[in-house]
Amino acid sequence: MTQKKSFGKRGLTKKSENISQWYNDLILRSKLADYSEVKGSMIIRPDGYALWEKVQSILDQWFKEDGVKNCYFPLLIPYYLFKKEKDHLKGFSPELAVVTHAGGEKLAEPYVLRPTSETIMYKTFANWIHSHRDLPLKINQWCNVVRWEKRTYPFLRTTEFLWQEGHTVHQTEEEAVEMTLKALDWYQKFYEEYFAISVYAGIKSDQEKFAGAKTTYSIELVIPNGKALQAATSHNLSDNFAKVFNITFLDNQEKKRHPFQTSWGLSTRSIGGLVLVHGDDSGLIIPPKIADPQIVIIALSDKQEKQVKIIQAYAAKIHQNLEEQGFKVILDLDFRHSLGYRINEWELKCVPLRLEIGQNEIKDKKIKFVRRDDFTKGFIAENKLASEVGKILDNIQKDIFIKSEKIKNDLTIEVEDYQEFKKIVKDRKVFIRAGWCENEKCENKIKEETKLTTRVLEMQRIKEKPKGKCIICHQPAKHKWLFAQSY
Amino acid sequence: MTQKKSFGKRGLTKKSENISQWYNDLILRSKLADYSEVKGSMIIRPDGYALWEKVQSILDQWFKEDGVKNCYFPLLIPYYLFKKEKDHLKGFSPELAVVTHAGGEKLAEPYVLRPTSETIMYKTFANWIHSHRDLPLKINQWCNVVRWEKRTYPFLRTTEFLWQEGHTVHQTEEEAVEMTLKALDWYQKFYEEYFAISVYAGIKSDQEKFAGAKTTYSIELVIPNGKALQAATSHNLSDNFAKVFNITFLDNQEKKRHPFQTSWGLSTRSIGGLVLVHGDDSGLIIPPKIADPQIVIIALSDKQEKQVKIIQAYAAKIHQNLEEQGFKVILDLDFRHSLGYRINEWELKCVPLRLEIGQNEIKDKKIKFVRRDDFTKGFIAENKLASEVGKILDNIQKDIFIKSEKIKNDLTIEVEDYQEFKKIVKDRKVFIRAGWCENEKCENKIKEETKLTTRVLEMQRIKEKPKGKCIICHQPAKHKWLFAQSY
Repeated sequence: MTQKKSFGKRGLTKKSENISQWYNDLILRSKLADYSEVKGSMIIRPDGYALWEKVQSILDQWFKEDGVKNCYFPLLIPYYLFKKEKDHLKGFSPELAVVTHAGGEKLAEPYVLRPTSETIMYKTFANWIHSHRDLPLKINQWCNVVRWEKRTYPFLRTTEFLWQEGHTVHQTEEEAVEMTLKALDWYQKFYEEYFAISVYAGIKSDQEKFAGAKTTYSIELVIPNGKALQAATSHNLSDNFAKVFNITFLDNQEKKRHPFQTSWGLSTRSIGGLVLVHGDDSGLIIPPKIADPQIVIIALSDKQEKQVKIIQAYAAKIHQNLEEQGFKVILDLDFRHSLGYRINEWELKCVPLRLEIGQNEIKDKKIKFVRRDDFTKGFIAENKLASEVGKILDNIQKDIFIKSEKIKNDLTIEVEDYQEFKKIVKDRKVFIRAGWCENEKCENKIKEETKLTTRVLEMQRIKEKPKGKCIICHQPAKHKWLFAQSY
Repeated sequence: MTQKKSFGKRGLTKKSENISQWYNDLILRSKLADYSEVKGSMIIRPDGYALWEKVQSILDQWFKEDGVKNCYFPLLIPYYLFKKEKDHLKGFSPELAVVTHAGGEKLAEPYVLRPTSETIMYKTFANWIHSHRDLPLKINQWCNVVRWEKRTYPFLRTTEFLWQEGHTVHQTEEEAVEMTLKALDWYQKFYEEYFAISVYAGIKSDQEKFAGAKTTYSIELVIPNGKALQAATSHNLSDNFAKVFNITFLDNQEKKRHPFQTSWGLSTRSIGGLVLVHGDDSGLIIPPKIADPQIVIIALSDKQEKQVKIIQAYAAKIHQNLEEQGFKVILDLDFRHSLGYRINEWELKCVPLRLEIGQNEIKDKKIKFVRRDDFTKGFIAENKLASEVGKILDNIQKDIFIKSEKIKNDLTIEVEDYQEFKKIVKDRKVFIRAGWCENEKCENKIKEETKLTTRVLEMQRIKEKPKGKCIICHQPAKHKWLFAQSY
């Protein structure tokens, strides 16, 4: 990501022609992020960071309402700690960044930069937990993590990224499972209600689960090019780590036992998902529920100086009125530039609703509006402005969700036969729903031949009675799974 | 900080006897922080992190109101960038932690973990800034930084800490100076109005300023043992970095010029300062303006089950009433433990105001209160509860500020003569105000012979006409400076 790109004001590649190029152009052009001097790391610019702050404020409130408390553990993890859990070590080893020197000296024991914090946290949990009265322990941290990926894309996969990682400890595995599912629900609700993206929520295959987990649940986004983006995960760690880090508690029968743990995370990748799903050839589309501003009022210029002043005053009144009603509104009085230029800039900046005010609007007491998502235009009577604006914003939120749901459904194809499977994915990328015996061999064969991996077994299909056969080995299928190529 | 300490419930060392031991005990006992497996790094536990979140919410609002925008730059800084500004390199070199390996390979060029972000940011600023229309640029980031210190204390000096770093770019040096002073004002206001700590604000000596700055301004706390804690800094960087990183802009005459920069930061050290200044032998004292909860209601137990229920209901009513008035209140219904134990725990947890409700209170319609700061007790008539509680909280905020101001003044001694200076600091640590010629040689002699360094030239004394002589060389003093030993 040290490569530099420049392009003109209208220089966006078309999303339908080359989604990767369109994505990179849009991220830079809309100033969400910038390339940095650090290979694979990006700079999150103010407009991008404001979206992350919105993500934080929503999730943080839910966590706190549930009794999860924020804290902060060290960035550096001594290597002797990191290597304690063997699967965890194996999973993360290829991606570790290592500090070998500090304070002018070679370190006796190297430190790894946290790719995730299970090991450094759980060593300490063993000191904090003694009795069943210390449980459940529920903590979260908002922090940076480092995973040395080879191929990187802004937001989607960067060597450093920001995330939250929740970690909880429970007396029973039932409680841990309940917590794992609660976190998954938060993530699904977040994507659907705030990001207006219809998602797949489900369970990961053994091969694709988190290194060290018993079960991983995941939120998967369907990108309009038919690829999959893993957008949040929640892990039932069972007592795997508790055993390795010797976390024990006395239960209410005074019996010493290992507790059960969960961890769950959502990262700045979510912003990449938002851009990929909703963006179009004109730029970003931000759901009204998370947009700030939600509304831009463009005061039109006029040849007569006197008229400009009247328009300006009228627009200011409308601005104040809408702000008082709780909308997030910005007033554009930039008369230096042409209307076309100004509209272009606001479309790129993705304000969901545009109001235009010129002398006609004042005369007719009707305000012109343009929706950013579908460019619908119309007029709103001044005396109904606040209520109508509220309705339009609600409709935008609903309509872009429905659009994302349609994309998801259109790009998911159920097949019974492997020849059909291969034929479909040869032509275009899609999600395939197909029967699988849940044997790793069949999963690997599909991956090798088609690049598609298991994404999830959807939550509502976990209890479905097995029907049909595995499309590879023709043994009875355990479930119907979703397969797709990773973005 | 890998050393483990354990102590009983009443095991706090006395502050007056051994403040360092008292401090370490208190930090652990009150669960603000814990030692970690990483040398010199601490774990910020939920109660400590909640204080940091409060700090963040206050400052972040002021920054945003001033048009400063949050963003995020990479943790890793390529060494070739870091070494560009020579003074900066020299100042930070001894404290750098270095990543030499990543993704299973030795890196061609090592990365340093940011000790501060001037170099990584300003390289990019050169791409963002072209015209005077791009200025001022005002950004901030909340992040972790790493400085490999040899001697560490929780919050006060840790190898990793959390902070905010503001960075701004301006057309003129006057504007940059104005911004530097604005940031200093924010910090002073924050410490005085929210942390209730009277501070010294002033300018650092050339020797003590930030590596790469033209001028550093600093907030200094007077710790009750007479030592000094640098509690926030604001730097006028002039065009030093702009020249090194080739940041230029076309001014409104189309002339290419270097802009002027500032940077300013406040860290988790602030929480250490809060504990050191206000804490006492019973535990923490948290100013009401930042405390959450501000009030604890202890429902007293009773021998009669029926009576307990009446007390519980009454306490719940009071709780609801105070919460509706906007106070942050917690209700303690833990009847399992003795009153003494419960009071002890809440004192340690530093809730500013305690209300006790038993059958006498219900009968007399008067609620017993106890202030945490000075243990004043009294009764409040039930029908005046909200207004009286508000007054008491305001008084606590004022009184602990006044107390800190008295400590500051009592521990600051003005001297005219170096023999007197040495005599005083031989017996006890204090701040000394004395004339200095502003020559480094005299500063060094004082440091060598007494361990005291220049802390600041106070803001209100910068324009004072020089009076008297330098206490070392007897040449005319340029100003009266504050000297003290660093905590």
